[in-house]
Amino acid sequence: MRALISVSDKDGIVEFASGLAGFGWEILSTGGTYKLLKESGINATEVSEYTASPEMFEGRVKTLHPKIHGGILHKRDDENHVAQATANGIGGIDLVCVNLYPFKQTTIRTDDFDEIIENIDIGGPAMLRSAAKNFKDVLVVTDILDYDEILARLNDSKADYEFRRHLMIKAYEHTAAYDSMIANYMNERFNGGFGASKFIVGSKVFDTRYGENPHQKGALYEFDYFFTNNFRALKGEASFNNLTDINGALMLATSFDEAPAVAIIKHSNPCGFAVKSTLLESYTEALKCDPISAYGGVVAINGTLDKALAEKINEIYAEVIIAANVTDEALAVFEAKKRIKIFTQDNKFLVRANDKYDFRRVDGGFVYQERDEVKDDELKNMKQMGKISATNEQLKDADIAWKVAALTKSNCVVYAKNGAVVAIGMGMTSRVDAARAAVAKAKDMGLDLSGCVLASEAFFPFRDSIDIANEVGVKCVIEPGGSIRDDEVIKAANEHKIALYFTGVRHFLH
Amino acid sequence: MRALISVSDKDGIVEFASGLAGFGWEILSTGGTYKLLKESGINATEVSEYTASPEMFEGRVKTLHPKIHGGILHKRDDENHVAQATANGIGGIDLVCVNLYPFKQTTIRTDDFDEIIENIDIGGPAMLRSAAKNFKDVLVVTDILDYDEILARLNDSKADYEFRRHLMIKAYEHTAAYDSMIANYMNERFNGGFGASKFIVGSKVFDTRYGENPHQKGALYEFDYFFTNNFRALKGEASFNNLTDINGALMLATSFDEAPAVAIIKHSNPCGFAVKSTLLESYTEALKCDPISAYGGVVAINGTLDKALAEKINEIYAEVIIAANVTDEALAVFEAKKRIKIFTQDNKFLVRANDKYDFRRVDGGFVYQERDEVKDDELKNMKQMGKISATNEQLKDADIAWKVAALTKSNCVVYAKNGAVVAIGMGMTSRVDAARAAVAKAKDMGLDLSGCVLASEAFFPFRDSIDIANEVGVKCVIEPGGSIRDDEVIKAANEHKIALYFTGVRHFLH
Repeated sequence: MRALISVSDKDGIVEFASGLAGFGWEILSTGGTYKLLKESGINATEVSEYTASPEMFEGRVKTLHPKIHGGILHKRDDENHVAQATANGIGGIDLVCVNLYPFKQTTIRTDDFDEIIENIDIGGPAMLRSAAKNFKDVLVVTDILDYDEILARLNDSKADYEFRRHLMIKAYEHTAAYDSMIANYMNERFNGGFGASKFIVGSKVFDTRYGENPHQKGALYEFDYFFTNNFRALKGEASFNNLTDINGALMLATSFDEAPAVAIIKHSNPCGFAVKSTLLESYTEALKCDPISAYGGVVAINGTLDKALAEKINEIYAEVIIAANVTDEALAVFEAKKRIKIFTQDNKFLVRANDKYDFRRVDGGFVYQERDEVKDDELKNMKQMGKISATNEQLKDADIAWKVAALTKSNCVVYAKNGAVVAIGMGMTSRVDAARAAVAKAKDMGLDLSGCVLASEAFFPFRDSIDIANEVGVKCVIEPGGSIRDDEVIKAANEHKIALYFTGVRHFLH
Repeated sequence: MRALISVSDKDGIVEFASGLAGFGWEILSTGGTYKLLKESGINATEVSEYTASPEMFEGRVKTLHPKIHGGILHKRDDENHVAQATANGIGGIDLVCVNLYPFKQTTIRTDDFDEIIENIDIGGPAMLRSAAKNFKDVLVVTDILDYDEILARLNDSKADYEFRRHLMIKAYEHTAAYDSMIANYMNERFNGGFGASKFIVGSKVFDTRYGENPHQKGALYEFDYFFTNNFRALKGEASFNNLTDINGALMLATSFDEAPAVAIIKHSNPCGFAVKSTLLESYTEALKCDPISAYGGVVAINGTLDKALAEKINEIYAEVIIAANVTDEALAVFEAKKRIKIFTQDNKFLVRANDKYDFRRVDGGFVYQERDEVKDDELKNMKQMGKISATNEQLKDADIAWKVAALTKSNCVVYAKNGAVVAIGMGMTSRVDAARAAVAKAKDMGLDLSGCVLASEAFFPFRDSIDIANEVGVKCVIEPGGSIRDDEVIKAANEHKIALYFTGVRHFLH
């Protein structure tokens, strides 16, 4: 048997090649891989020697040769193929082990376009695709983590059809991901990110028990190992619906960097958020906003969940907790609670992936856009529109109300006071309905909105919401501005002695 | 100059090759393309003759040869490369025109795995990728629609760097899409659709003016030409937010096949739906549900928008209309209305793409699932749970209420009567809140809910919603069932003489 080994990442390759050699396999290799194998005492033949064709053009052409591809591609169970191979001096190549030039790492390291182009692998994908096509006869190896299993299966004669087919699928996933990365990079560099084709490529993290409903299959896919590196299940398993809720809670809880923020989400809607001086205080304040909805909700904690906080959370039924870290004592608090699920990122603070783009499926395709985010300068650059100036405390609450509003389903309004969201109205077809709904709920909860800051993620079309805000004692309003009736809104704010600020930036979220 | 032409789809290839030949280019070709060119009187050389290496293994190895790939890949502005090429008898190949084996069409035509595998192109992608890598020196042609422009540019010496780079990006998009298709197919066939990698590949239909907000760039991408074939702008251009709303309206309006259904959507939420005997009647009834929210909404019409319907719609302000077809007279009705947007599918009835999968972004990846749909047998197989049976009229309304509930944001309830939705409560954290909100709104609108059917997309956890339904005169309730308190719900239905049916299927939509 004969193996062709040509790898960019040389991790584990000596052991793998040595294992194959131990089975009596002949090894073909190129360039750096060949050198390493020889130095390691493995008997390998250079591809250029094997093909009697020189490596050319600084390595651009090495393996693109009939003796290599014919050796891979001919069907071993087809008499004519075998006869043709023999007649043309083509020996079989029964295993192809290739990993590709590090295109992505190159684009991270440099902007030099010539260097980036040079790191587009041509020979590698061609061999992988050939070997995958002829997977019945050829083992195609793209993943370092498979080396041991392959050796073990060869040793036990268990490199069977199903296993070979599995490797084939991996190989096409590998080449598809590689060219997707190249195409996306080129469109990013030359077409502002919105080229003629868009490739959204995810790697499976895990299957969920089912999808949004029990009759649907579902799974979580990741970019760049985000979940692999930042998501641990300490208790219970994340359902499909948990994952979207956790995402919402995480985005909120990370919106103040390393501050001790706590967010509570129910059915994808924020129902509590606070940034106080400790996580325990933040949770206590966040819960006050809507303790009824918080029942069965998702709590995100931007820091370490300790015993005291765990005991506090344990007073109600949270379905899901996601924390940057969880102490053993805190975990023990929930031991008796079978249904609660606890996840951690194993970090000091929660982290976001901060994807650059956002997308949403529509039947027959998807809409794709730059991800929305609240920039630091939005609040720095906001303009005072009326006679009244906000106090420093109000400006801090404005920051909270504004960021929460940007992460809440439109149309929404957010009332915040003393570092916490006190009321929130969302997902309404009219803005004044959202303002009213939030006030009504706050009254039900016995919450006092006086002294609050009110934020709206899009402009107030009429003065009515400002009038409602005044009735409950709001002292500061922040909104994008831009309505044809901004004058009315400014007039209302001045009448009520409310500080009014326009950011000039809208944050619709549907 | 020398071109290599090897195409699976031979449309336009004779004209293109003949154009190149007319400029004095030498043509290399293979198999069927070579035969066609020769028959058409174009002077071409077979690749096997050019390389002095036979085509082998039933065409599996034709172009994988240093003389071909060296001819493509060597840098024309690098002395050493040129010297090496000369020394090895390698002439330049300055244009590569390739389209690939029809993998997808093969999978549609047959399930025969050997035949499908045979239709994985190896040589083609290798040449495209080589030519794309060396795009500075080589024109890489993957798209029949580019033939004319390429000839024109060659004629005018305008095949410049930017244009070549543009072709390079197209080539990597092409190979990425091809391998993505193969990987997805294999995972579909062997891993139930949820393999280790998932490739969501879209082709741009158009850039939207901006994304969800003005500071975000956005675009619509399609699968399989769905929008190209089924979306025409007759008036105005679709915004990013329009597209998601149109999608919601379309899903609703197509939920009764060819029935004259009309759906009204505002901010992604249904606020009107009816299936009466004509579209005009359906629209009239659909509007009654929530005429205030319908202002500025999206109307989907499952049939032809004619003048009478247009005049009726024109009485209020609809922002967007999507209809299967629109008559010229109907279009004329809206001539003076600058802001209204009108789209058509150019069909007799609205059509869905019926994507098999659904996905949603979460930071760092996406969740992926089988698309939810209401199956025909859900209502056929639903079980009567109480003593009262529904009338035939109620069963028809149950069908409407159930399908609309499945397409409405959870938690939701839908009240339907006489072929129309009368009230709808949605996006609430509690089901009874949704039931109450719908009733309150119906009262505001002066609508009578007596005799309605009530549907809930997930089970009622308590009897409270049934009691509320009874107060307004609901006579039939349809829900999945499955609560630990189903007994209470059944008891309440019997007490109130309400017909109660369980479908056993939940339709959460978040």
